[in-house]
Amino acid sequence: MSSIWKSNLTLSIFGESHGPAIGMTLDGHPAGEGIDLESLQTLLDRRAPGRSPQSTLRKEGDVPEFLSGVKDGKTTGAPLTAIIRNTNHRSGEYEALQNVPRPGHADYTAHVKYGGHHDHAGGGHFSGRLTAPLCIAGGICLQILARRGITITAEIVSIGDVTGPEVELMAEIDRARGAQDSVGGVIACVATGLPAGLGDPIFSGMENRIAGLVFGVPAVKGIEFGTGFQAAHQRGSEHNDPFYFDGDTVKTRTNHHGGILGGITSGMPLSFRAAIKPTPSIITPQESVNLATYESAVLSVQGRHDPCIVPRAVPCMEAVTAIAICDAMLEEGVLA
Amino acid sequence: MSSIWKSNLTLSIFGESHGPAIGMTLDGHPAGEGIDLESLQTLLDRRAPGRSPQSTLRKEGDVPEFLSGVKDGKTTGAPLTAIIRNTNHRSGEYEALQNVPRPGHADYTAHVKYGGHHDHAGGGHFSGRLTAPLCIAGGICLQILARRGITITAEIVSIGDVTGPEVELMAEIDRARGAQDSVGGVIACVATGLPAGLGDPIFSGMENRIAGLVFGVPAVKGIEFGTGFQAAHQRGSEHNDPFYFDGDTVKTRTNHHGGILGGITSGMPLSFRAAIKPTPSIITPQESVNLATYESAVLSVQGRHDPCIVPRAVPCMEAVTAIAICDAMLEEGVLA
Amino acid sequence: MSSIWKSNLTLSIFGESHGPAIGMTLDGHPAGEGIDLESLQTLLDRRAPGRSPQSTLRKEGDVPEFLSGVKDGKTTGAPLTAIIRNTNHRSGEYEALQNVPRPGHADYTAHVKYGGHHDHAGGGHFSGRLTAPLCIAGGICLQILARRGITITAEIVSIGDVTGPEVELMAEIDRARGAQDSVGGVIACVATGLPAGLGDPIFSGMENRIAGLVFGVPAVKGIEFGTGFQAAHQRGSEHNDPFYFDGDTVKTRTNHHGGILGGITSGMPLSFRAAIKPTPSIITPQESVNLATYESAVLSVQGRHDPCIVPRAVPCMEAVTAIAICDAMLEEGVLA
Amino acid sequence: MSSIWKSNLTLSIFGESHGPAIGMTLDGHPAGEGIDLESLQTLLDRRAPGRSPQSTLRKEGDVPEFLSGVKDGKTTGAPLTAIIRNTNHRSGEYEALQNVPRPGHADYTAHVKYGGHHDHAGGGHFSGRLTAPLCIAGGICLQILARRGITITAEIVSIGDVTGPEVELMAEIDRARGAQDSVGGVIACVATGLPAGLGDPIFSGMENRIAGLVFGVPAVKGIEFGTGFQAAHQRGSEHNDPFYFDGDTVKTRTNHHGGILGGITSGMPLSFRAAIKPTPSIITPQESVNLATYESAVLSVQGRHDPCIVPRAVPCMEAVTAIAICDAMLEEGVLA
Repeated sequence: MSSIWKSNLTLSIFGESHGPAIGMTLDGHPAGEGIDLESLQTLLDRRAPGRSPQSTLRKEGDVPEFLSGVKDGKTTGAPLTAIIRNTNHRSGEYEALQNVPRPGHADYTAHVKYGGHHDHAGGGHFSGRLTAPLCIAGGICLQILARRGITITAEIVSIGDVTGPEVELMAEIDRARGAQDSVGGVIACVATGLPAGLGDPIFSGMENRIAGLVFGVPAVKGIEFGTGFQAAHQRGSEHNDPFYFDGDTVKTRTNHHGGILGGITSGMPLSFRAAIKPTPSIITPQESVNLATYESAVLSVQGRHDPCIVPRAVPCMEAVTAIAICDAMLEEGVLA
Repeated sequence: MSSIWKSNLTLSIFGESHGPAIGMTLDGHPAGEGIDLESLQTLLDRRAPGRSPQSTLRKEGDVPEFLSGVKDGKTTGAPLTAIIRNTNHRSGEYEALQNVPRPGHADYTAHVKYGGHHDHAGGGHFSGRLTAPLCIAGGICLQILARRGITITAEIVSIGDVTGPEVELMAEIDRARGAQDSVGGVIACVATGLPAGLGDPIFSGMENRIAGLVFGVPAVKGIEFGTGFQAAHQRGSEHNDPFYFDGDTVKTRTNHHGGILGGITSGMPLSFRAAIKPTPSIITPQESVNLATYESAVLSVQGRHDPCIVPRAVPCMEAVTAIAICDAMLEEGVLA
Repeated sequence: MSSIWKSNLTLSIFGESHGPAIGMTLDGHPAGEGIDLESLQTLLDRRAPGRSPQSTLRKEGDVPEFLSGVKDGKTTGAPLTAIIRNTNHRSGEYEALQNVPRPGHADYTAHVKYGGHHDHAGGGHFSGRLTAPLCIAGGICLQILARRGITITAEIVSIGDVTGPEVELMAEIDRARGAQDSVGGVIACVATGLPAGLGDPIFSGMENRIAGLVFGVPAVKGIEFGTGFQAAHQRGSEHNDPFYFDGDTVKTRTNHHGGILGGITSGMPLSFRAAIKPTPSIITPQESVNLATYESAVLSVQGRHDPCIVPRAVPCMEAVTAIAICDAMLEEGVLA
Repeated sequence: MSSIWKSNLTLSIFGESHGPAIGMTLDGHPAGEGIDLESLQTLLDRRAPGRSPQSTLRKEGDVPEFLSGVKDGKTTGAPLTAIIRNTNHRSGEYEALQNVPRPGHADYTAHVKYGGHHDHAGGGHFSGRLTAPLCIAGGICLQILARRGITITAEIVSIGDVTGPEVELMAEIDRARGAQDSVGGVIACVATGLPAGLGDPIFSGMENRIAGLVFGVPAVKGIEFGTGFQAAHQRGSEHNDPFYFDGDTVKTRTNHHGGILGGITSGMPLSFRAAIKPTPSIITPQESVNLATYESAVLSVQGRHDPCIVPRAVPCMEAVTAIAICDAMLEEGVLA
């Protein structure tokens, strides 16, 4: 299982942060779908490090190389594999971390799970870098959906306790960096133009599918659909969204349900929010343990780490939503 | 897909609220596991309606009949199927609803998805009643885990805006009922005694598995692990949980991570919270549409409906957590 | 895993031969499909024991009870569960077998696999009786396909070394019975009316899907598609089927490929043959072991056992083929 | 689905014959398993073209490049991806074939399935070349099994009507080549050293798993386990394998069951045979159609094609068997 998401679409993510390459294989998507490389690169660039003063200094052109499944700019219908070479890794930096797990990071649990055999450098397979192949798959799905009038847009709701325009959000990230610290945030994502009737009851609802993918993005600690946790504070008369006819189309006057009822799309905008925790790797010294010597340790992480990964997680939310929607459309036979 | 959850364990849920029976098949669990029927019934009774003045008046003894997979009180290793007969249904009540979907309910989306062929009576397959078979499966898993020292407990955090002792929470439910309305709430769930190393990175993390099951419980609008959405407001120095040795065991001083790092259990208590929306079915008149006549409609739902399903969702959270943990233990070969 | 077949359709088979009931849950099929109970019963009766002098004397009316997924004679779209009660079991007969595994049967391997906890009576979950729920699922699929002009027919090719009309085949079964022995045979199955383009390359070809289901029928020892093993003796110039246009339709002059090329249907009749071994349970004494005493044992199986299950496996072949084809059609979106 | 095999192990095969690369991702295997590159290459070389006068003249060093999942010669536990670059393709040769499908090949069905968008050059994703990544995955599994005392060996049983020593088999291939024709054959595969208790009843038996993989090898038209089709000609008293104790171990005096009873390994050697059809691409002119002009066509395939792929399919049979066995061992928790 682990890094395979398999439903009607299958997405296999592979690679380690400091290994030869990262990549993905998408299988089950339709043949004959155009791939606009420029548009795809724009998505990848939004996710990539090194774009702004607020993000990590490690600079890599995350340019995918397509190994299969594409011919003359269109999908062939066969499995589509794309890889990104890792060119800028400096694993030496991570040797100090080998036995001292970073608090808040998967270093320790990966050590237990894989008996010390995993590639810990740069977080290995647990690195946020693995969201690049996720965005390749999602970028292809976003293009497939856009051609059918479906648009997906994510944006930052808050950084730490700050809400407001982007300049203020970025200022909060700068303050965290200045304090040799990191900070979390919340992202909102909305999909519009969806047909009603996508998804299933119980275990294959749109929430299940999206949540199952969203938690594939490291650092996500929560997800809520529509009014989400606020719904727990509402009365039914307030929360229930009244139905009405807009011409022949059934709509709801409000959208507390976030476009999903009983796991199935209602045709209203599908909306969710995801909570992103602060980056684990900070310069501020943290208490840890040495797994080799069984002694206490103090850790100050010096590497090139974003003080806040929220901005880079924004395109990831669009990507996973597109994957989940394409998957549900395939099931309904409306992606032929 | 729809009502099948398939990983190392497979759980198939079937039935419609007013059909002959509801039930489930569990497959992949170990042979030779004892099933304490009394303890299982206690869990089912916590979920069942009609237990308290606050819950629906419809009374059914949710007593499972085991059709397969059990011999002499132990699992045989073959698929385990249990059903609950529906004895108390009064479908006539639902005829009025056939063409007028309840706001906040799956009536409308099920109508679109299944082209009008679904069994709408009592919510059909979308009914909260389908959580009874979920609790049968979860109850068996809870017993399997308890024998290995793993305990799972859920409780209500809040009803509407009320937190506090149970009597105050129930009073808020009564107020909602008195107002011919309904109300939501938040549930917290904790699993203790877990080994470190369960779960996988990316798509098969413990969060993905649990979320994929939790959203199988109708009315869940959000889930958060550890500090969850609050983590989005924290700095890394505050959020990251320092590691230390407790004897030979690695623990963390705080547990903001909720027992999961990189999708894998750390050995600390696994914790999450789920947001439950208010029951859609209320007596208070609501605006809706008539799907047959294409006219506006006003709906006042008269049936036996809980003003708050949060109390009955508590054992469901324990159930799904047990299923997810058993599943991850099977993968690690530690449930032999 | 075990008794779940999950692709676009999911089929979960449950039950033990002498337990309370056997049954199945089908999930993923379309809503609004009529179920002709009479036609379904005819299929089940062809599979049932006790129909002819050649088959076992155990007589059970294999009449399915539908627990979910059917309303007014049509599928609702929700999971469809049907069960058959076991009414005629006489487990006492099997006590002698508890520790002495029947040669050629799963008694021994089930004992190892489930650590002695499995229900050995009547073969438990390994009984040929479990093909009844398989035929319920397949019968529903056969009706779905028949409405789309797709017909599936299986027939006996040989019993032992005998080929020819049915009376001669039955005579060979009688000879086996007279010798207190059993006998195997070969079944051929053909599906006509299929569209071209169903199935996938590599692991989800029509052969993979059908074989994955056919080996779910106990006693199957081999499967071959088109000319099958005979193809291994052919030259390419002989085996390759020339293409030609019949109007606008591409056909082949011969059909050595059995309607499948590269895992995908060609539109020509899909054909395969399956080899069925002789029934393991025979009166003739056989050498075995006593797993409790670690001593040699001699076994003469006295129960009601068919000397040849080939006739009863015929409808099973039609059933599994229908399931595989419906599954592939769902993937292509041509079963909406 | 298509090119993903997902059970406890997941294997994703990607690539097109004349695209940039072919490859595979294996996921779910244990961490810390050594990979002996030399031994792996030996397996790949047995599969590769150009080794003997009997095989195609196209010569490519099928040397895998590992992109992820390996560190210091051992598996890290993360998904393992390896690719092989396609260096020797001459797609021009295939332009003539674009609209004229080769009889016996997937050209036509792929055309229908993918609406003309597939990469037809060299057979694209349907090429036998895709068995190279299958052998990488299988080669890794073979090494994992060998360390646990499990050995898998396949060999040619017959080429056309010829059985006997290799020199005679090769002579028959030469005769087919001399006749500008091709020829099929039969391969036998045996796994020894297996524990009893691997596999499941009904849909996840060892036969289902192996058959599901074997039909992933192009040109396979049939599979039979143990005595296979011959079992259909036997009486039970002849076919059933008597049990006896060899010390504390239960064995059978004969092995007509091929090491599998009820889908589960008995501990006796697991054996099967696969039928391989003659190569579709032959110089001898064949009748076909022109899909662009709707006219008849005559095709003489000039490319570098093996007159017989049976020798190259031998390591593939070992590979898929190893994958299926590793998968079943993971399920039993005996590969930790």
